[in-house]
Amino acid sequence: MSNRHLRYLVGAMLAVASTAPTTAHAQASKPAEDPHAKAMADVVLANHILADQGVVDGFGHVSIRDPADPNKFLMARSMAPELVTPADVLEHDLDGNTTAGPNVKLYLERFIHAEIYRARPDVMAIVHCHSPSLIPFAATGVALKPLYHMSSFLGPGVPVFEIHKAANGSTDMLVRNPELGKALAKSLGAHPAVLMRGHGAVIVGKDVQQAVFRAVYTQMNAQLQSQAMALGAKITYLDAEEAKKSEETNNGNIPRAWELWVRKVKQQK
Amino acid sequence: MSNRHLRYLVGAMLAVASTAPTTAHAQASKPAEDPHAKAMADVVLANHILADQGVVDGFGHVSIRDPADPNKFLMARSMAPELVTPADVLEHDLDGNTTAGPNVKLYLERFIHAEIYRARPDVMAIVHCHSPSLIPFAATGVALKPLYHMSSFLGPGVPVFEIHKAANGSTDMLVRNPELGKALAKSLGAHPAVLMRGHGAVIVGKDVQQAVFRAVYTQMNAQLQSQAMALGAKITYLDAEEAKKSEETNNGNIPRAWELWVRKVKQQK
Amino acid sequence: MSNRHLRYLVGAMLAVASTAPTTAHAQASKPAEDPHAKAMADVVLANHILADQGVVDGFGHVSIRDPADPNKFLMARSMAPELVTPADVLEHDLDGNTTAGPNVKLYLERFIHAEIYRARPDVMAIVHCHSPSLIPFAATGVALKPLYHMSSFLGPGVPVFEIHKAANGSTDMLVRNPELGKALAKSLGAHPAVLMRGHGAVIVGKDVQQAVFRAVYTQMNAQLQSQAMALGAKITYLDAEEAKKSEETNNGNIPRAWELWVRKVKQQK
Amino acid sequence: MSNRHLRYLVGAMLAVASTAPTTAHAQASKPAEDPHAKAMADVVLANHILADQGVVDGFGHVSIRDPADPNKFLMARSMAPELVTPADVLEHDLDGNTTAGPNVKLYLERFIHAEIYRARPDVMAIVHCHSPSLIPFAATGVALKPLYHMSSFLGPGVPVFEIHKAANGSTDMLVRNPELGKALAKSLGAHPAVLMRGHGAVIVGKDVQQAVFRAVYTQMNAQLQSQAMALGAKITYLDAEEAKKSEETNNGNIPRAWELWVRKVKQQK
Repeated sequence: MSNRHLRYLVGAMLAVASTAPTTAHAQASKPAEDPHAKAMADVVLANHILADQGVVDGFGHVSIRDPADPNKFLMARSMAPELVTPADVLEHDLDGNTTAGPNVKLYLERFIHAEIYRARPDVMAIVHCHSPSLIPFAATGVALKPLYHMSSFLGPGVPVFEIHKAANGSTDMLVRNPELGKALAKSLGAHPAVLMRGHGAVIVGKDVQQAVFRAVYTQMNAQLQSQAMALGAKITYLDAEEAKKSEETNNGNIPRAWELWVRKVKQQK
Repeated sequence: MSNRHLRYLVGAMLAVASTAPTTAHAQASKPAEDPHAKAMADVVLANHILADQGVVDGFGHVSIRDPADPNKFLMARSMAPELVTPADVLEHDLDGNTTAGPNVKLYLERFIHAEIYRARPDVMAIVHCHSPSLIPFAATGVALKPLYHMSSFLGPGVPVFEIHKAANGSTDMLVRNPELGKALAKSLGAHPAVLMRGHGAVIVGKDVQQAVFRAVYTQMNAQLQSQAMALGAKITYLDAEEAKKSEETNNGNIPRAWELWVRKVKQQK
Repeated sequence: MSNRHLRYLVGAMLAVASTAPTTAHAQASKPAEDPHAKAMADVVLANHILADQGVVDGFGHVSIRDPADPNKFLMARSMAPELVTPADVLEHDLDGNTTAGPNVKLYLERFIHAEIYRARPDVMAIVHCHSPSLIPFAATGVALKPLYHMSSFLGPGVPVFEIHKAANGSTDMLVRNPELGKALAKSLGAHPAVLMRGHGAVIVGKDVQQAVFRAVYTQMNAQLQSQAMALGAKITYLDAEEAKKSEETNNGNIPRAWELWVRKVKQQK
Repeated sequence: MSNRHLRYLVGAMLAVASTAPTTAHAQASKPAEDPHAKAMADVVLANHILADQGVVDGFGHVSIRDPADPNKFLMARSMAPELVTPADVLEHDLDGNTTAGPNVKLYLERFIHAEIYRARPDVMAIVHCHSPSLIPFAATGVALKPLYHMSSFLGPGVPVFEIHKAANGSTDMLVRNPELGKALAKSLGAHPAVLMRGHGAVIVGKDVQQAVFRAVYTQMNAQLQSQAMALGAKITYLDAEEAKKSEETNNGNIPRAWELWVRKVKQQK
């Protein structure tokens, strides 16, 4: 009998005598009065969704810009995304500092987030991942391009960040300081995503729903593009206008996917 | 403790003292007296089955022609298929209108269904999906052909709909009006399925079981055909007579798969 | 609240007050006194294992030769393997007849089993499946050969049955009569498995554990061989002596896999 | 109603009246005073994690060097990894002997572990597996190289063990005696992993967490390298310095993955 099942049963017995709301997740999906509290809860949700959708494994992270202070962002301490709880979310500043004590381990690559928030005022949420389908594109430089409308946001192309050059030839592959973060942000430019050679990718959005949506469908497009390339025939990608118009339409449908993904992670609790 | 688990336990305690039937699903699988009520329940079931079988993700939809009025069809409001409940199913007319109020969001692509029902009196159910294995065929135009008997209904071939041409060069990729719906229906012709370049597919049937069966095995055939092509040797597809005879036989076995798929989605409740 | 969960909870409450054994599965795994009863229970188990291991979906079947009468075999009525219960298992004779009434639907392809039991006295169990990884080999005729020791039983090669020829050019792809069953058995010869072009495969064993083991690892070898061929380098397959010696050793380890597979299907009840 | 669910419910009722700790797993994750007891518990955990992560199926094994005696190691008796319990873990010496009675079946390939522990004093844990993505590399000799930083420990290359030569041309493919174990250990040399042609792989580590981490990410790198090769463009692998620096950094992050993997196997109990 695991703790998890015990909690279910004990909780159920108590809940029978009560009509009070139950989980952090349930509360997170209600309209929150406090934007900061909502953002904190959304960081937890986004971590769980990205793990459930296979975008992250034990590694990878997601952040939200602090709605009350554009020079700060909310992100978990260094831990597996699937295990993040509200108590693990810390406020980081754009130099990568937090108010947590010296015993709290932070993500070594928090400078990815800090420097993109600094360079891109339009970005309100950031995902960093090692999605399996993206690594082969990052390792070969084969151009990732949208072959179906769910991934139309990739229309402007996806640059590839080469850390070897940015680190002057000496690197452990991690974006572990502000200089490397700035170089990555420069490589990203105005794009929605950037691949990282030998490493993974970064995907950004105007809110956390869009960043997560883009992460899921960047991964899916890479998988489908690999399969289409294997068929050995010419691929017709979305042209620039198709991609632009499609992205505008899709942005209105992101809540449909988000509602599903939230429900899925709730069902696992 | 999630709401879902709470519902299980509370329900169980009440049910112990009762012998009344329980879920909408259980009722749906019993012979219903009222064909309209049965069709409503089948729309819900088909949505859940298509999600469970990986044919749809957060997007895609399925409809059934109203058994009481051939100029109407039943389909959910705009939402993820996996989350559809009986309360979400709306009656649509062949112009894409419903009696739902202005605050209810409808699928933008309901004209896929409306115009196919108008053009094809034999069609009683329609699936629209973005099945991963179909996108590469839609993007390359490589002909999808049956390489095993479960997909023999593909014998007459699968046309590819090019929305760029139908929309006179300006499109967000969606079949968002009656004209585009008519063009898609024309492309489908008398076939059981049509691929949509840069988008997905539409699969039709003489009832909802057949439409869902065909959607599952169109997806499977595409996956297996990709793998067979990768082996680099000549593929022997079913010939026209094999496909025709096999399809006739298979139509008698669809209830075997349907019974399994219904059971699987019930087990998840 | 589904029936399945209700059954769990009601059952649990009753079981607390009882120490009696519970499921058919639990009984099946105990040493049974009666070989016939054990074979009946093993047919159910094998169906559930093959579904759980992805060898069969809604279609496919498995049989065991009747330990009390070599001219009879035990197999379910026509239904999805995952749903088979002890009450669904029927005794068939080698002409494909059962004592079930006319309303009981039998598998159209029961002649696969009947004619192989007739032709191969050493065979005590038979699996028929549409394993996804086998279809591409069946459709191309690319030779399936063992590239790792778990599949060493494939050393003597895997023939491909061409039903078009056996049916004199007119076929619905199914082995639906004794003549086609005899032709398939002839194609199988003394091999452990035969692929069926445009259809699937048949795998046999000296007992049900071996037949199921071979079905799982035939499927796995096909998947791995496809992947190895995609690497574009020469593949070193097991040579004839390696395959023979390896198979002898592996036959002693089949109970290790069987114990695991039984446990997995029990956990899902 | 299965035994497993019955155990949950009965356990829950008892647990409500108790605050005592519950599972072996929960105890295993607490800091154990006794290193030997902790190693015993870690053998169980590692078996369950490797099964959950798809590194092993019904076959494969994992061992830990006895912290109290470097000439001994802890490993389960011959059984499926997923089913191993503390009562199944036996102390083996470097000749492959245990104190278990003659009725206890041991892994035929325990000499893999014995001879590597003898040859490599730095190795404290060993995984043997048939990971699907590794078999194609073992069968072709295509060089496995790190294409992303999680697999940077593969930088020094992965040798391939050819048992045919080591066994003088007569083999059942198993490392079933000390001589073959010594030949395998020689092939491994100072590397973190060795592929076994026609069989699988062995991965070693300075502790069980590192050995399991390396097994998971060797498998993942093979899958991603296959996909990258299929894209048909030049792959940029991590260079020697990148691999070395990355590995040093990653070694500090292994506990993050381990914590997640432990949680996942606990949730399944």
